[in-house]
Amino acid sequence: MTTAIYPGSFDPITNGHLDIIIRAAKLFDKLVIGVYETPDKPILFTTEERAELVRKSVTNLPNVEVGVFSGLTVAFAKEMNAQTIVRGLRMSADFEREFDLAMMNKKLAPDTELICLMSDLKYQFLSSSLLKEAARLGGDITNLVPKHVAKALRKKVGSQM
Amino acid sequence: MTTAIYPGSFDPITNGHLDIIIRAAKLFDKLVIGVYETPDKPILFTTEERAELVRKSVTNLPNVEVGVFSGLTVAFAKEMNAQTIVRGLRMSADFEREFDLAMMNKKLAPDTELICLMSDLKYQFLSSSLLKEAARLGGDITNLVPKHVAKALRKKVGSQM
Amino acid sequence: MTTAIYPGSFDPITNGHLDIIIRAAKLFDKLVIGVYETPDKPILFTTEERAELVRKSVTNLPNVEVGVFSGLTVAFAKEMNAQTIVRGLRMSADFEREFDLAMMNKKLAPDTELICLMSDLKYQFLSSSLLKEAARLGGDITNLVPKHVAKALRKKVGSQM
Amino acid sequence: MTTAIYPGSFDPITNGHLDIIIRAAKLFDKLVIGVYETPDKPILFTTEERAELVRKSVTNLPNVEVGVFSGLTVAFAKEMNAQTIVRGLRMSADFEREFDLAMMNKKLAPDTELICLMSDLKYQFLSSSLLKEAARLGGDITNLVPKHVAKALRKKVGSQM
Amino acid sequence: MTTAIYPGSFDPITNGHLDIIIRAAKLFDKLVIGVYETPDKPILFTTEERAELVRKSVTNLPNVEVGVFSGLTVAFAKEMNAQTIVRGLRMSADFEREFDLAMMNKKLAPDTELICLMSDLKYQFLSSSLLKEAARLGGDITNLVPKHVAKALRKKVGSQM
Amino acid sequence: MTTAIYPGSFDPITNGHLDIIIRAAKLFDKLVIGVYETPDKPILFTTEERAELVRKSVTNLPNVEVGVFSGLTVAFAKEMNAQTIVRGLRMSADFEREFDLAMMNKKLAPDTELICLMSDLKYQFLSSSLLKEAARLGGDITNLVPKHVAKALRKKVGSQM
Repeated sequence: MTTAIYPGSFDPITNGHLDIIIRAAKLFDKLVIGVYETPDKPILFTTEERAELVRKSVTNLPNVEVGVFSGLTVAFAKEMNAQTIVRGLRMSADFEREFDLAMMNKKLAPDTELICLMSDLKYQFLSSSLLKEAARLGGDITNLVPKHVAKALRKKVGSQM
Repeated sequence: MTTAIYPGSFDPITNGHLDIIIRAAKLFDKLVIGVYETPDKPILFTTEERAELVRKSVTNLPNVEVGVFSGLTVAFAKEMNAQTIVRGLRMSADFEREFDLAMMNKKLAPDTELICLMSDLKYQFLSSSLLKEAARLGGDITNLVPKHVAKALRKKVGSQM
Repeated sequence: MTTAIYPGSFDPITNGHLDIIIRAAKLFDKLVIGVYETPDKPILFTTEERAELVRKSVTNLPNVEVGVFSGLTVAFAKEMNAQTIVRGLRMSADFEREFDLAMMNKKLAPDTELICLMSDLKYQFLSSSLLKEAARLGGDITNLVPKHVAKALRKKVGSQM
Repeated sequence: MTTAIYPGSFDPITNGHLDIIIRAAKLFDKLVIGVYETPDKPILFTTEERAELVRKSVTNLPNVEVGVFSGLTVAFAKEMNAQTIVRGLRMSADFEREFDLAMMNKKLAPDTELICLMSDLKYQFLSSSLLKEAARLGGDITNLVPKHVAKALRKKVGSQM
Repeated sequence: MTTAIYPGSFDPITNGHLDIIIRAAKLFDKLVIGVYETPDKPILFTTEERAELVRKSVTNLPNVEVGVFSGLTVAFAKEMNAQTIVRGLRMSADFEREFDLAMMNKKLAPDTELICLMSDLKYQFLSSSLLKEAARLGGDITNLVPKHVAKALRKKVGSQM
Repeated sequence: MTTAIYPGSFDPITNGHLDIIIRAAKLFDKLVIGVYETPDKPILFTTEERAELVRKSVTNLPNVEVGVFSGLTVAFAKEMNAQTIVRGLRMSADFEREFDLAMMNKKLAPDTELICLMSDLKYQFLSSSLLKEAARLGGDITNLVPKHVAKALRKKVGSQM
């Protein structure tokens, strides 16, 4: 059975993430979404909230599971018996950092493969950080995230004001 | 009447900003400089100080006004009855982030146009952050900022030591 | 009266070009599209064909004219009494070359302003060269170019086979 | 059965290509290498030579086949009943062009997936064009290509002098 | 006598830094490594620890010295009677920021030359920040840093857990 | 004695090249400018013309020599007993190609060092190709090249019309 993981902060999950998940789920027998517990940046939602928002977004995808991890991505892959790590590439994202990570992963776990899917054109500009900024400033985020995420986001940033 | 806004943190205004302002002021009947109140980065000058330093720099430009705003840039544009947002592009600046912002703005306010002016060659390397770093370390910042800004900057970073 | 030129090879004009034209036409009293006669690359359509395909695409835009030029872009701007040159920026296009051109233009004609409009998200990937490649290989180019251009393109590349 | 194609000019195949082939062959039941007949650049080896050099390089990979194609990449994928196109990403390669191609492919054949594998660190600098340049100038190309390719390359560029 | 400085945070020194040091030491009569006291980012090791780890790494390089500095890099160069500043360029590092710094340095001290050495292929992906992340998460960092640095790093991040 | 080479097409030499030459000549006992005989691009001046234009530009630099070469750059370096290759880096130039070349050179001749000097701000936009384009179209190229080059260039492109 081919298994892949799709790691990320998902703070929160966007339609761009979801597009990658749907496409990756077709390529592998099983896809495990790994919600990274302690990202090196300020986080809006708690780990459990982030995982829950992901879970609600993928209920109709039978071969997709959601997990939480805290150590090395390659260690999480091994734990899940996954041979492959999936990443989404946005043109405006930090391609160079992506490369550094890929090479470091290869050094740490030479047998784990990393594949990149290019983000759909309509989600090229959509990052979680820009999304949160827009939401915080009162922008309309419909069509950028699943409905239950929009609701959670509005509640969360509203409670910040 | 054509109106444009030129939004930014202006912490503080540099000769590079001023060059963009002078050029943009020729393209539109009215140009409103929008000093962003709550940027997502550490700020050296208070909002009022930043706005004041901008105001003193543009006193000889009759069709330029200075405002302060805190929400979405496109909302400030609408409030000012501006159809256009002006941005300065430095080659060494984050072109990708600029694109993400442009696309997000378009999504939030499809009718607002965004135009970019390329920074003059002699200001290509001049960012507010590098300027502050140089000032803090005692570097000579003459010719990089208007005189009253140099004075304010030296006073501010001196008071930090 | 404010006048701008929008120079290019237009080999052939695409919906991406057209989007820039429509937006730029709102910013200026008059917009002159400059079809560059002798680009430094292989050309599929003759100068007259390229200009004609552009003309047919802008018949409903009253303040847009089409011209042909062969020397320096800044010289064409001067000849048209235009103060401004308009360029479309695609994220995937050669941003660096664009900068070199802008700086060279500034050196050759310091008074001519250059403004950039960012291409609409849905035309980000659309270059004339990729379009021609797709047409040549039998791909469906509907929605990427105006109808009369699609027809001309199919006729032209058909006659190459 | 999952099938993928790996298209390219392979003029000639390098150890960098081979590394991608070996890794991609583990991800799919069948991998078809597509040698592109009419690339838009000067070619050193004939199509048949290029295909033969690829074939000799993959004899020990049971689930890898080699084909030749001339039209759209997505059409070749369909013909091979492949759901996926594989691309190798070198950091120094033209990431932007890669994106344009991916978006154009998506437009032409929305159901075909494209995945990218990042080139191994030791092949990051290795392009077919730089390889040919080095060979032509008498540089030592051992370890950069399979032995039979090195031999063919030396014979070919020798015959050019 | 030609003298150069090689400034940096060295938090901690990696084999990539060491490779640049060894190569730069061949180009100049004397090379002074400048450990920057107050970098604009979170630091793992104290200034003295960082300097000491560097010192232990270069004991066998007779023309290399280690110093600590806190103001402008160009001021430190002048203090050391150095005419040249050495920088290592990683492909995945922030090339644009490097350029801004170079231009700002030139403005502040026109007589000081800056030269760049390109990082060895096998250290292209190796940044101090990624190294620390890997060490913190329990990854194997052997071959990425000198032995005494690996030991110090494990001790330091162990004490953080 | 430290010796370095500065290789290039020099078609023709510009003030940007000259700035690099003057700075590099201070770093080494001897600097040999290598005019590449058979560049992989269309050439305006013959090899002898290019070498002559370089020679006339450096007559007042006692430790600078001019040579012509046709094979590998690293072979020319060896022939000149040079340990170092000098390259000028323009921000808008192809940084990635520069890296590929550096890594390939390292592979072909591990002992030869390559150093990069960053182009002066005022020559950042100045490439030989853009210069020729401007000259061909009748632009004013004063201050971009030495006087004798401007003369030769005008004569050459005039004779093309």
